[in-house]
Amino acid sequence: MAEELVLYSNPMSRGRIARWMLEEAGVPYSVEWLTFEGSIKAPDYLAVNPMGKVPAIRHGETIVTEAAAICAYMADAFPEAGLAPPTNRRGDYYRWLFFAAGPLETAVSLKAFGMEVPQERQRALGCGSYGTALDTLSFAVTRHPYIAGDTFTAADVYVGSHISWGLQFGSLEDRPEFRSYWDRLKDRPAHIKATTLDDEEMHRQLQAAKG
Amino acid sequence: MAEELVLYSNPMSRGRIARWMLEEAGVPYSVEWLTFEGSIKAPDYLAVNPMGKVPAIRHGETIVTEAAAICAYMADAFPEAGLAPPTNRRGDYYRWLFFAAGPLETAVSLKAFGMEVPQERQRALGCGSYGTALDTLSFAVTRHPYIAGDTFTAADVYVGSHISWGLQFGSLEDRPEFRSYWDRLKDRPAHIKATTLDDEEMHRQLQAAKG
Repeated sequence: MAEELVLYSNPMSRGRIARWMLEEAGVPYSVEWLTFEGSIKAPDYLAVNPMGKVPAIRHGETIVTEAAAICAYMADAFPEAGLAPPTNRRGDYYRWLFFAAGPLETAVSLKAFGMEVPQERQRALGCGSYGTALDTLSFAVTRHPYIAGDTFTAADVYVGSHISWGLQFGSLEDRPEFRSYWDRLKDRPAHIKATTLDDEEMHRQLQAAKG
Repeated sequence: MAEELVLYSNPMSRGRIARWMLEEAGVPYSVEWLTFEGSIKAPDYLAVNPMGKVPAIRHGETIVTEAAAICAYMADAFPEAGLAPPTNRRGDYYRWLFFAAGPLETAVSLKAFGMEVPQERQRALGCGSYGTALDTLSFAVTRHPYIAGDTFTAADVYVGSHISWGLQFGSLEDRPEFRSYWDRLKDRPAHIKATTLDDEEMHRQLQAAKG
């Protein structure tokens, strides 16, 4: 019997990245919704993720947190979905997963918050300037059709989500290469299904909040 | 014939993490030293890493940047070293690699720079507070002898380096669980050899700078 797979999420969070990945893997799962002001900081959930944030997944007895880790984990746990390169060809795959989860995430967030890193600290922080991080992202998305080569992988779910999110909310500079990369991803059935399901839950929650 | 393996580094950088990983893999490599004020921003090196930072590795025609990505790549590229769990048991492995490369790195760096994230932005930034990140690290290092289970993996090179660095430079709160975790790692022959080699180069550069 397959091990139970549970997604801990909120429809207005990085949980959308994990949902997309679960849909790409094509395996059954259930969702536990967490509220930012309540259950996400409750002891039950802190036992899952002491960071008190979503997403997390539980797969049998394995708990994985951090959206990028969930993408990498799912690809390896369900190899029949073909979402990771063979282990002897993972240079670009790991490179861009970790670039997006580290320097890109940090540079974009700090910029959005008006907290850009002073020049003299950019080296120590490792994310460099917002401009350098974006130029590196441009480099990454123009080398191959997909981020790790000629085929779609879990790294595209993660990097693509950053780009989609950034273009939608204006935290990422609008560049043609970001648009054309995202155009290759956005109509994937798994992405459409995940977005539809999360949108439905978001509207349900907004209606409920209105009473 | 084995593919050429080159480490791009500076002895006063996160390049030390990559060197330790290369030594754990036990394979031959050469080092190209980059200077922060010169060659690291020169076109030759920007073609390797447009971020203009070290470490990077070149393995045949594959280039990998980001210290955590280098750890994950090396473990998979040289499976005979046994530095990654089997692909069907990588939950903790990916979880803590990405936790350290993302939230931990960001929370610790911002704290060190006196740039702690305001409460209302912690959720959006995803690194949470310094305290929450450290509590999560305490949780991570006390669950098993090593970060991903009962055996040493590439994730220990990366997480261990964060802890060693943080304790040495005071950017990480000194907690007994961080000390005991690091005590299990620090005397590994690969760590001692990597540190010795980088210390030698650092002293050579400091002497040269003095004229």
